[in-house]
Amino acid sequence: MHAIGVDIGGTKIAAGVVDENGKILAQTRRDTEPDDVASIDAAVADVYAELSKEFEVEAMGLAAAGFVSPDRTSVLFAPNIAWREYPLADKVRALIGDDDVKIVVENDANAAGWAEFQFGAGRDASDMLMLTVGTGLGGAIIVDRKLVRGRWGVAAEVGHMRVVPGGHYCGCGHEGCWEQYASGSALVRDGQAALIAQPDRAAALLELAGGDASKLNGPQITQAAQDGDELAIELLATLGRWIGEGAASVTALLDPELIVIGGGVGAAGDLLLQPVRKAFADQLSARGHRPEAQIDLAQQGNEAGIVGAADLARS
Amino acid sequence: MHAIGVDIGGTKIAAGVVDENGKILAQTRRDTEPDDVASIDAAVADVYAELSKEFEVEAMGLAAAGFVSPDRTSVLFAPNIAWREYPLADKVRALIGDDDVKIVVENDANAAGWAEFQFGAGRDASDMLMLTVGTGLGGAIIVDRKLVRGRWGVAAEVGHMRVVPGGHYCGCGHEGCWEQYASGSALVRDGQAALIAQPDRAAALLELAGGDASKLNGPQITQAAQDGDELAIELLATLGRWIGEGAASVTALLDPELIVIGGGVGAAGDLLLQPVRKAFADQLSARGHRPEAQIDLAQQGNEAGIVGAADLARS
Amino acid sequence: MHAIGVDIGGTKIAAGVVDENGKILAQTRRDTEPDDVASIDAAVADVYAELSKEFEVEAMGLAAAGFVSPDRTSVLFAPNIAWREYPLADKVRALIGDDDVKIVVENDANAAGWAEFQFGAGRDASDMLMLTVGTGLGGAIIVDRKLVRGRWGVAAEVGHMRVVPGGHYCGCGHEGCWEQYASGSALVRDGQAALIAQPDRAAALLELAGGDASKLNGPQITQAAQDGDELAIELLATLGRWIGEGAASVTALLDPELIVIGGGVGAAGDLLLQPVRKAFADQLSARGHRPEAQIDLAQQGNEAGIVGAADLARS
Amino acid sequence: MHAIGVDIGGTKIAAGVVDENGKILAQTRRDTEPDDVASIDAAVADVYAELSKEFEVEAMGLAAAGFVSPDRTSVLFAPNIAWREYPLADKVRALIGDDDVKIVVENDANAAGWAEFQFGAGRDASDMLMLTVGTGLGGAIIVDRKLVRGRWGVAAEVGHMRVVPGGHYCGCGHEGCWEQYASGSALVRDGQAALIAQPDRAAALLELAGGDASKLNGPQITQAAQDGDELAIELLATLGRWIGEGAASVTALLDPELIVIGGGVGAAGDLLLQPVRKAFADQLSARGHRPEAQIDLAQQGNEAGIVGAADLARS
Repeated sequence: MHAIGVDIGGTKIAAGVVDENGKILAQTRRDTEPDDVASIDAAVADVYAELSKEFEVEAMGLAAAGFVSPDRTSVLFAPNIAWREYPLADKVRALIGDDDVKIVVENDANAAGWAEFQFGAGRDASDMLMLTVGTGLGGAIIVDRKLVRGRWGVAAEVGHMRVVPGGHYCGCGHEGCWEQYASGSALVRDGQAALIAQPDRAAALLELAGGDASKLNGPQITQAAQDGDELAIELLATLGRWIGEGAASVTALLDPELIVIGGGVGAAGDLLLQPVRKAFADQLSARGHRPEAQIDLAQQGNEAGIVGAADLARS
Repeated sequence: MHAIGVDIGGTKIAAGVVDENGKILAQTRRDTEPDDVASIDAAVADVYAELSKEFEVEAMGLAAAGFVSPDRTSVLFAPNIAWREYPLADKVRALIGDDDVKIVVENDANAAGWAEFQFGAGRDASDMLMLTVGTGLGGAIIVDRKLVRGRWGVAAEVGHMRVVPGGHYCGCGHEGCWEQYASGSALVRDGQAALIAQPDRAAALLELAGGDASKLNGPQITQAAQDGDELAIELLATLGRWIGEGAASVTALLDPELIVIGGGVGAAGDLLLQPVRKAFADQLSARGHRPEAQIDLAQQGNEAGIVGAADLARS
Repeated sequence: MHAIGVDIGGTKIAAGVVDENGKILAQTRRDTEPDDVASIDAAVADVYAELSKEFEVEAMGLAAAGFVSPDRTSVLFAPNIAWREYPLADKVRALIGDDDVKIVVENDANAAGWAEFQFGAGRDASDMLMLTVGTGLGGAIIVDRKLVRGRWGVAAEVGHMRVVPGGHYCGCGHEGCWEQYASGSALVRDGQAALIAQPDRAAALLELAGGDASKLNGPQITQAAQDGDELAIELLATLGRWIGEGAASVTALLDPELIVIGGGVGAAGDLLLQPVRKAFADQLSARGHRPEAQIDLAQQGNEAGIVGAADLARS
Repeated sequence: MHAIGVDIGGTKIAAGVVDENGKILAQTRRDTEPDDVASIDAAVADVYAELSKEFEVEAMGLAAAGFVSPDRTSVLFAPNIAWREYPLADKVRALIGDDDVKIVVENDANAAGWAEFQFGAGRDASDMLMLTVGTGLGGAIIVDRKLVRGRWGVAAEVGHMRVVPGGHYCGCGHEGCWEQYASGSALVRDGQAALIAQPDRAAALLELAGGDASKLNGPQITQAAQDGDELAIELLATLGRWIGEGAASVTALLDPELIVIGGGVGAAGDLLLQPVRKAFADQLSARGHRPEAQIDLAQQGNEAGIVGAADLARS
């Protein structure tokens, strides 16, 4: 059975028809306006119309960057889109005018994690932790082959586990959230700080940034590290250490067999993965008395949200 | 249907016949020897024989303080009993000589948490975090009405989530584990330190401890706090703060609707609960955009392990 | 004997004639351009000309916000003025054309601390720690009645003692510097975060800020606290705790008899001082076996830099 | 002029005649009883009698492990000897019966640091920080060629600067004191923890400890590191990192030109020094805009207390 997956971002939506093996058969896109929620409803209905013309679909999953209600019909709150207690599924259904198609709303990180679990690095696993290391740190938790949504649909906000009391401020208003240490933003912030604090070691990074610390970005740090720059290697190792140490804390709670690292930083490969694995092993409780989770890079790409949302709508 | 629950400690086992409402119909005990695992098998068989004489039982749950295999038949490792990859269920069955009774091994904290979930503070909840604040910090995690055991049966080791990098050493060999801040031991250790560091404020506590800092214990601190001693109130507030802040981190991951505080420190009542709730609220991510978990004291007493093991064996 | 003190800021200089009792007999000002160091030289020469017309002066002290050479003639580096290895005393002398007047350059925080020590809260002390809690955290250290300048003139950068590993980033490129916890900026940042994280408690603060979190400032928090707002009181208490705990660390090193708190936050009075004193006492090492430093508010106002620079030039 | 230096430990005193170049001309020892302070007085008088027979001495310095009064005549408090507000100089003088010899009491760490400053690694310096990394972390501070004693003689308790809020408990009753991270005890504790937490990497260390984690000691870790054991090298690097990072904090306050590392861990040589220097440089505020302190090993041996006490008595 085919299903449509729609990944709704702030300024555009990407949609696709997905088969039961997680394969995308057709794709389309629309631009949207984050402050105009009705325009998003219309765009979703529009891609549905387009894609359902050619393919027979029985379900549609909407991956939304926000808190999703436990019954998977509404978005309670979204940081970047003007949804507040918004009945997204009903709104879209009204536009579609088809009562038979099943419409399901899912958190976007959950959808992407589910795609990884079903069709990617986690396809042989039963218990998995997905960590998406991007601007922030998102994630998804799979326990006994089921996605953990929590009582109110807000589970797996892994980036807001506190790892340093009195630590860096987070946009959420708290200090020391994991995503302030284990994200691409943290990597860049650490790199920019190193340009100030360790100018003697930072020549290569500064050059890559065109001489302007504020222009330094993650791919430049990865590039420098791959070219052997010691400071850049250290920066990736620090990022990896925080990912691995935090993952060990989550593992104390959930005992997954697999931890998947997604997001752009994956491009650093072993320069990131090895510090992650070492820190995880160093920090894992009861080591030697338990099997240890494997840590791998994600295999699904940017379409993971589409694939996961479609699959979750179907199941 | 009745089931037997057996709580196996280091030096004694406590067993009972439990009905479907979590009521204990009969109880018995045996002394055991932690280094002689065969003696434990025999004692379990013995209580089974005693209790099954009077009651018809179809299952027996064994609550064990150790890592339990995912198939719930063996203890992989126990810190205080000489079990190493030990097929406890099979050993007991061989002694019982009854192939029909279902025998299930469960981690003791999981069993106690399950009793709380089924018959205690959590009986109306679907997602619950149990925190047992005793010598250490144990726990149980219920997601969508199911006990989370993890891939290898080692989940819910909540006490080993790291809360302070570079923090207090834990018996597990790591620094900063939650149980070093949120346990009765932490309360006593903090109290003893205060006797040294703040002698001017510690007169009442020192007197309760008979003038000997090393004799100070948790009930004395609770007593002093209830009598209005400012330092003791502060010590309980610090304990409560660490419980609440850690619970907020777990909530970022799991979004429970209920957090239950068990263990001896519950005797402090509101002197503990209020700081827990304040710290939880202060530290909860996305507050104001999500419903908030309730935090309550446990209702099940010392027999929770018996009740939970019996019920988990039955289900 | 009279001396002139000049406090050189980024955009203006303030100067005065100071007598031996620290009294300012006359004052004047000039606007300056931070990127044009010659204009600053000229302005200093100009105020000298003006003030020395009416008063007989034998020395002039220049308080500069930067690193001052050990021989007190040059500014090695300044964050906000374009001085780099700049021979400030010689430049000014060349313009003045008077070889007899003694010209001395001092770090501005050192100058202000010295004024406090000689004529303010510290006039009866021999060992004092001055903490100026403003945008950042500046300070001065007096050991055995002498100002501690350090081997290269860079001592008393108290704000850059690290108090939280992995803590808030500092403009200096490091994490966890004391001034990120013990400054007016930290107070405001914490207040803004509380508006996000604890919206239910923040109504009064939000109203004082005109409904715009980014407009919240320190005087508003102090105002709210004085009006009894619980969150504002808590914010000042947190600020005070960090000041007091850090001061206890400095005291372990230097054993001062007096710690003076200067800067705008002093307006909060006991709402700040009491938490400072409690945290200092709670955190002081070897308490009960040593006398304890007194903690007081500064008595010198905005002219402390002028007074201190003049006095240091004279002595 | 010759002076006698006496280093008073818990169970023995070591004394020597020291010339103006810090050379010991003669030495002697006595056993003492820490709970019997009069026996210590007598032993000191006795070594004075012995040493002053052959050498003309005009002063005697007594290095005491405790808090010394600012007038350098009494011990206010000592953790390991029964001195409480004890007029040590007067007591000794009464036994000696010589009013002409100058008797001075000094803190033992200050005395040792002074020897290093006058005759050892610091002989060309004006501002020095001495760190004695032993069971604890002791130290001495030299500012502008003078020993910093503080207002009440209790300065330079460097080991009790807090470096980790919520960190390891210290015998002083506080958490996170520097000496819990930068001492031989910390090294051993970290090593023992690694034996538990990282059993797979700890084989060599465990063997050196005779298979018993509780027997692991510092020299064994140093030995293993020198033999190339990766875990041991990491343990020394962690110790070095904490020393260097803390030293950077002290440097923000005092701007020394030289930091001297003394104590048994010096045997590790570059395996310790290199991580100290890297961490110091990485953490130093305003790096690149200031000269940087040199970091060297101590040159004075176990007699530093004798030499320093004698020299301080003379000066």
